[in-house]
Amino acid sequence: MSFDHLQDLIKAKKNPTVAGLDPKPEYVPPHIRKASYDKYGETLEGAADAILQFNKGLMDALCDVVPAVKPQAAYYEKLGWQGMKVMEETIRYAREKGLFVIADIKRGDIGSTAQAYSDGWLGKTQVGDKLLPAFDVDCVTVNGYMGSDAINPFLETCRAEDKCLFTLVKTSNPSSSELQDMVAGDRVVYQVMGDLTQRLSKDDVGKYGYTRAGAVVGATYPSDLRALRKRLEHTFFLVPGYGAQGGTAEDVQYAFDKYGRGAIVNASRSIMCAWQKTGKDGMDYQDAARAAAEAMRDDIRQFVTIL
Amino acid sequence: MSFDHLQDLIKAKKNPTVAGLDPKPEYVPPHIRKASYDKYGETLEGAADAILQFNKGLMDALCDVVPAVKPQAAYYEKLGWQGMKVMEETIRYAREKGLFVIADIKRGDIGSTAQAYSDGWLGKTQVGDKLLPAFDVDCVTVNGYMGSDAINPFLETCRAEDKCLFTLVKTSNPSSSELQDMVAGDRVVYQVMGDLTQRLSKDDVGKYGYTRAGAVVGATYPSDLRALRKRLEHTFFLVPGYGAQGGTAEDVQYAFDKYGRGAIVNASRSIMCAWQKTGKDGMDYQDAARAAAEAMRDDIRQFVTIL
Repeated sequence: MSFDHLQDLIKAKKNPTVAGLDPKPEYVPPHIRKASYDKYGETLEGAADAILQFNKGLMDALCDVVPAVKPQAAYYEKLGWQGMKVMEETIRYAREKGLFVIADIKRGDIGSTAQAYSDGWLGKTQVGDKLLPAFDVDCVTVNGYMGSDAINPFLETCRAEDKCLFTLVKTSNPSSSELQDMVAGDRVVYQVMGDLTQRLSKDDVGKYGYTRAGAVVGATYPSDLRALRKRLEHTFFLVPGYGAQGGTAEDVQYAFDKYGRGAIVNASRSIMCAWQKTGKDGMDYQDAARAAAEAMRDDIRQFVTIL
Repeated sequence: MSFDHLQDLIKAKKNPTVAGLDPKPEYVPPHIRKASYDKYGETLEGAADAILQFNKGLMDALCDVVPAVKPQAAYYEKLGWQGMKVMEETIRYAREKGLFVIADIKRGDIGSTAQAYSDGWLGKTQVGDKLLPAFDVDCVTVNGYMGSDAINPFLETCRAEDKCLFTLVKTSNPSSSELQDMVAGDRVVYQVMGDLTQRLSKDDVGKYGYTRAGAVVGATYPSDLRALRKRLEHTFFLVPGYGAQGGTAEDVQYAFDKYGRGAIVNASRSIMCAWQKTGKDGMDYQDAARAAAEAMRDDIRQFVTIL
């Protein structure tokens, strides 16, 4: 059970947070960018190399503080295949460091197409007689707008590989209400998605009471978060929206069960860009990131005790 | 206006269909696979090369019959960065052949993350002082579960680059009803998504009356298709579900306006796998694909006259 493994890592590090690796170019300290551009020119390859060096440095600094990292595919994809190569290298490095890797891909497609995505990200790809891993992460995010046809192929791969996923249920952004909050019968749309997520994986509950199918629930709507925690008692939560988007430690406490389990809170910008607040031009980005991750951990632990 | 350009290509070729490039390994004729494996081994690189050779051969055979191709990202991503490299090469080859390229990526994320996706797929990526294209297609598919925050960044890039997109509205798969058909007030969820799509792009209508923001509407629910055509009079439709999924030419006719415009119908398997029905081991895959594309064109033209 992969959420069991994640929960064990959270307990060992006493830290229910995940560091987002969303490397916007301006997040990368100038000296790292310069070194990569000197080597590869101002090319997609150069930009991708800068991101890889930054990610590695961050993970070196964070790997004994945080249990998990969450690379966001968009920032790699925007650099074309060179970016995707660096995403693979980032994932491999993270796993070598013992970090649990959540690929924030938000893929959503059906049947054999969903199967292709899940082969590539969670499983293995058949080539001739061989089964080869491609991106090979522990966990992905999935968009279920197309219904269970979009979720089940990922779940099958999760069962085969002992991995797990998060579906988008109630997201942290301002316009999430446009569709997700619509009243549909006696529920709202995000409750429908949450119920579907829990139901599809209900026979597969791990030692801490959580299934393989988790849910993304934003910290920016704390009353929804609190109600969803009660409604979906077997669903592990990934909680974005802490920090830059306005969610507080007091808000995110509602994501956790009475044992302080069942959720992980994401922060990206506050950790990756911590160096921008120390006035040292990014030469101290590792110390700054580590201090920010520790501060976030301690902030949340004021409200959450992990048993 | 990019749908104007697509409509002009449709008119010139008298063919409102798009060939899906969804290269499952078993779709690639054995002699092509063998040549690539002989060159690169049974590796992700070898499998990716086989797909590239197959795609190029298909596009050589189809480029004067179909106006557009639609590569499906999942089948490239499952081969890791080597697959994404071949997706880029496929796109570049298609554009050299004068084909309109719809990348079926179904990405859905918010704000600057959506912007990163749209830079990578539709726009340009800033690296140092340079602006570099990455995947560089004409059009993408977008998942709007997160609301207008997920659609607007793509639309902004579309306006800047004269490109276009399709949001997922009513998809062709069996479980699309689970979420999309839920009654929400006086509408159902897919109508909400359709209305949102049309509204976000309403000030940007091209010469044929269509905005930059199109909609995916499956052929497998023809009465929904017919009603959506009336409801969303300025929204161009991408129609999956013809052929293998059960949609007929009679069904898809409802996607078009009275001038035979405003929609394009996808087929993937029936074209890519046409060689599997001729008993010639795939040596004739180009002729078979071309004949299948012509048959599909003629089938739809029994019901649709393009003015």
